[in-house]
Amino acid sequence: MSSSPIHLHGKPLNLADMLARRQQGYSLEAPFYTSREVFDADMEHIFGKHWIYVGVEPDVPEPGDYVTVQVGEKPILIVRDDDGEIRAFHNVCRHRGSRLCADERGAVGNLVCPYHQWTYNLQGQLLFAEHMGADFDPSKHRLGTVHLKNVAGLLFICLADEPPADFEELAATMTPYIAPHQVANTKIAKQIDIIEQGNWKLTMENNRECYHCTGNHPELTISLYAYSYGFAPTPETDEGVRRYDAMVAERHAKWESMGLPSAEVDRLDSMISGFRTQRMPLDKTGESQTLNTRRACNRLLANFEDGAIGGLSFWTQPNSWHHFMGDHIVTFMVMPLDQDRTLVRTKWLVHKDAVEGVDYQIDNMTAVWDATNAQDRRLVEESHLGVKSPAYRPGPYSPYTETLVEKFSNWYINRLSAYIK
Amino acid sequence: MSSSPIHLHGKPLNLADMLARRQQGYSLEAPFYTSREVFDADMEHIFGKHWIYVGVEPDVPEPGDYVTVQVGEKPILIVRDDDGEIRAFHNVCRHRGSRLCADERGAVGNLVCPYHQWTYNLQGQLLFAEHMGADFDPSKHRLGTVHLKNVAGLLFICLADEPPADFEELAATMTPYIAPHQVANTKIAKQIDIIEQGNWKLTMENNRECYHCTGNHPELTISLYAYSYGFAPTPETDEGVRRYDAMVAERHAKWESMGLPSAEVDRLDSMISGFRTQRMPLDKTGESQTLNTRRACNRLLANFEDGAIGGLSFWTQPNSWHHFMGDHIVTFMVMPLDQDRTLVRTKWLVHKDAVEGVDYQIDNMTAVWDATNAQDRRLVEESHLGVKSPAYRPGPYSPYTETLVEKFSNWYINRLSAYIK
Amino acid sequence: MSSSPIHLHGKPLNLADMLARRQQGYSLEAPFYTSREVFDADMEHIFGKHWIYVGVEPDVPEPGDYVTVQVGEKPILIVRDDDGEIRAFHNVCRHRGSRLCADERGAVGNLVCPYHQWTYNLQGQLLFAEHMGADFDPSKHRLGTVHLKNVAGLLFICLADEPPADFEELAATMTPYIAPHQVANTKIAKQIDIIEQGNWKLTMENNRECYHCTGNHPELTISLYAYSYGFAPTPETDEGVRRYDAMVAERHAKWESMGLPSAEVDRLDSMISGFRTQRMPLDKTGESQTLNTRRACNRLLANFEDGAIGGLSFWTQPNSWHHFMGDHIVTFMVMPLDQDRTLVRTKWLVHKDAVEGVDYQIDNMTAVWDATNAQDRRLVEESHLGVKSPAYRPGPYSPYTETLVEKFSNWYINRLSAYIK
Repeated sequence: MSSSPIHLHGKPLNLADMLARRQQGYSLEAPFYTSREVFDADMEHIFGKHWIYVGVEPDVPEPGDYVTVQVGEKPILIVRDDDGEIRAFHNVCRHRGSRLCADERGAVGNLVCPYHQWTYNLQGQLLFAEHMGADFDPSKHRLGTVHLKNVAGLLFICLADEPPADFEELAATMTPYIAPHQVANTKIAKQIDIIEQGNWKLTMENNRECYHCTGNHPELTISLYAYSYGFAPTPETDEGVRRYDAMVAERHAKWESMGLPSAEVDRLDSMISGFRTQRMPLDKTGESQTLNTRRACNRLLANFEDGAIGGLSFWTQPNSWHHFMGDHIVTFMVMPLDQDRTLVRTKWLVHKDAVEGVDYQIDNMTAVWDATNAQDRRLVEESHLGVKSPAYRPGPYSPYTETLVEKFSNWYINRLSAYIK
Repeated sequence: MSSSPIHLHGKPLNLADMLARRQQGYSLEAPFYTSREVFDADMEHIFGKHWIYVGVEPDVPEPGDYVTVQVGEKPILIVRDDDGEIRAFHNVCRHRGSRLCADERGAVGNLVCPYHQWTYNLQGQLLFAEHMGADFDPSKHRLGTVHLKNVAGLLFICLADEPPADFEELAATMTPYIAPHQVANTKIAKQIDIIEQGNWKLTMENNRECYHCTGNHPELTISLYAYSYGFAPTPETDEGVRRYDAMVAERHAKWESMGLPSAEVDRLDSMISGFRTQRMPLDKTGESQTLNTRRACNRLLANFEDGAIGGLSFWTQPNSWHHFMGDHIVTFMVMPLDQDRTLVRTKWLVHKDAVEGVDYQIDNMTAVWDATNAQDRRLVEESHLGVKSPAYRPGPYSPYTETLVEKFSNWYINRLSAYIK
Repeated sequence: MSSSPIHLHGKPLNLADMLARRQQGYSLEAPFYTSREVFDADMEHIFGKHWIYVGVEPDVPEPGDYVTVQVGEKPILIVRDDDGEIRAFHNVCRHRGSRLCADERGAVGNLVCPYHQWTYNLQGQLLFAEHMGADFDPSKHRLGTVHLKNVAGLLFICLADEPPADFEELAATMTPYIAPHQVANTKIAKQIDIIEQGNWKLTMENNRECYHCTGNHPELTISLYAYSYGFAPTPETDEGVRRYDAMVAERHAKWESMGLPSAEVDRLDSMISGFRTQRMPLDKTGESQTLNTRRACNRLLANFEDGAIGGLSFWTQPNSWHHFMGDHIVTFMVMPLDQDRTLVRTKWLVHKDAVEGVDYQIDNMTAVWDATNAQDRRLVEESHLGVKSPAYRPGPYSPYTETLVEKFSNWYINRLSAYIK
């Protein structure tokens, strides 16, 4: 896609110009959130050429298990093969194009197309196609492969032929942080999908600040320290900040001694595979993002004995965030559906031996993020309705509480600019 | 928007050419009703640059009361400020664009954005924005204002920077007609929104003739004199017309003597702010547009003692009509949603001291127009389905019963031609 | 429509180039199934310039009976006039374009527009229009006519000014095959409409092969001989084929002697009005496409005494197929709704004197094709989701079981190529 004209309110706009004139410290111009053309560019360049988060190892615990995910117009199949390797394929038969697997998840021996029973093994090789004649060469009709990386149990795919190489750095940095939580030893206790009537970048910007938390998230803020959100410094807050910083330092020292890396790493807009992590104390009991801050699952993850290990947060560009606690993990995938609609898929993971109703109550575990997601959905949708107005003008980000929003916007503008000249 | 090509049935059309070749006395070419490009031009030039009717003073009876209306992609907020002045703003926060007020109506002290609690007063000034730092200047972030005029209780807005000046003439002419009904002393007894699956111009054309009434509106025609519709003169009707004209003259004289201006004024296609008015006798008891023509509300409007004052009708280009009777008022707003869908919002107003269930029964009051709206919706929708066909050709308007349709089409073509060259 | 650029995944494509480079023996490139521009071309050239199947004579058994059908954006009215002739008109009033008949079927004396009661006779002449004045000439406002042909009870229309002349050959060839079943002496026992979320060409391709039947249609395959599907020859199947061919020859000889033409005629891609027919034996009792292969209606069609006359199949380009048995007829119309949605209308016809509940049970009669349609819908929808993926590549048709798919694709490419240069 070259810099084709984009129409907004009847006036042609130029995406390359829009990218070039983006004003740092301000929200994006309206067409970035509202136009079909920008959405198509987002799907082609952002979601088509970067590593995107799609699921977790417990989505496919056993050989033959598969899970499907739709990325724009691309149906993708993720399957664990007979050797235990997790692979990703285009979920498209090489005969007449039918999807191979229609369900969101399942278990198979081979991949058999429902249309004419063309049969592929779990490495994507065409094993069998009836009635095709002597000249037909099955080896020329293997499934299209998709790059997949497993970062300590989190699954990322890249739809480009040559994926960004710096993802290795992300993986190397993050594995020591995540590995202690042993994602591969968890199971999915619950998955909830919601569709937000708003652009995916509004969903991401909403995730990248807690400026809105005090006014909107009564459940979430129970376990969060207000000082962790960022704030404009005032004489009144100095003492509180000092105390908070001291506590963080003390906790980090303790957790590091337990083998739990905790220091902040922020590469959100300084890498192609942008990410950020930080282990943050939780308020009150310090155990979990629940309504009473106590663990939601009595069977702790991994071999943890102490549940009060705060929350390891991990954010990736362009489409995920994750919170790893002592008792459970909450992981979020954002997937654009069109310029006006976005899927947010939330999964709650617990130790695979935890028993629902005994070790954990699912409603108790999901209460905070279920409520928070609903509140954020409303905020995203109200923003989307507002930015569609010609009266919308990019507004200033707070230099104290919206720095990570700015980094998301920077990353987005930089990445798209690499492809739109 | 210049004269960009419009596609219909695979062939590019030119809006300027279409406007230039419009044949007087005939309905419009199909793309005026069906194409997205014309719809965009309608919203930009017709609804974006003319005075449009949006509501009534009783929508915001007290300081702090607000009502919202969506004009195309523009969310608009109408609020009565603490000094009692009614103001209109773009319902878009100057921070990251969220709508300020999501509900259709409500009451507030200040306008507080739900996202990050940016707080504006009812004059649109930004009072408060947390975490924005010392360099932030609130005075540079006031709400976008929208022109608003209150014509004897009817609220019109204009989204252009420089609204058409001749609206003053409309206001000066109409105020003496409407003022006696004291809209500000009414309340909204009922509001009903319907969405018609048809282009807004088909809705307007339907409103501008009663050629279709005899065959379609059994409830409405109870109180209407057939001779008021227009008709092709025949020897058989001469006597009836004479008698009807004499009755109108007699009634007008009586009503004028009561301080109720009644004479027809028709500026539908001779002004930018086109309008028409006329006080017309009602049949039988002469009181109201009800199933039995009797007043629907025993508490009459204003200080009326005689309920038999006919119906003052008021039509405006591009999007409203209104009927003021002695006991209640019915007022209609048309708002295009897209080229294929149109909102029709009907409000029934009664004296603010009238008591539902005592002075009026709401079902009785709304029976005629609720039925009539449903019948018109069907007619509009059937027309829309027909004009989408390539077999549709502009057909001739009746020179006797469709003269006001012709004036609507004239006005529309002229106004759009002022902008599309 | 000239060779305007078509966008797929952000890259402009050229329809003329796409047509020119179509690879024989392979499914079509993705935009043929997914793009709006190709859909518009399909509606303009394929459905706008060829004979398309729309219904059966029993849709309008008596003078004044009408049935409506929507072809793209064109509402069409099919009516039997007072002389018994079946005519087709554009269902669009010549006044302001309203549809004349909104219902799917009904009976009328004249065609009266619901809007202003303009009244046309069943030959399409405007009889009456009130209030139009002395200069108005009704003869200049007759309904738009549409070409209609009745082939032994099957109704085809053509929306072009000059329809393809070779339809006469189709009619002459097919009439002897179909006439013995006496469609005019049937009634519609049941009509079921389904909407498939897929492109109409995927629906047609699905119909043109039974490669998918064994794996997907347990009900349909009860009465079908596997050898009738086509298959790759193997040493193991030689003997079966020989026996099947001998049986077909023996049955054909018998049926021909009964006055039932049976030989295969295949003009699917060698005529503008492409078609194919064949009378095929049915398995087991040989009577009907039912769950037990026995007749579904005890009152046989026409004057048949022997119900075991197999199934006469008739396929037409671009949008129909039909199965005529001794006891009932099943007839299918395909109508594109947009590039992603297709209407499939199935009608089951029985002798007009057959009595439901006595001579036939409707659920028993519809069981096979109701189930088969649902299975095919799923296959079409899965294919549509797959071909939207950029990972889809045209795949090879089986040279043994997909030859009629290839002929459909050939016909389509050739016909569109005649108009897109």
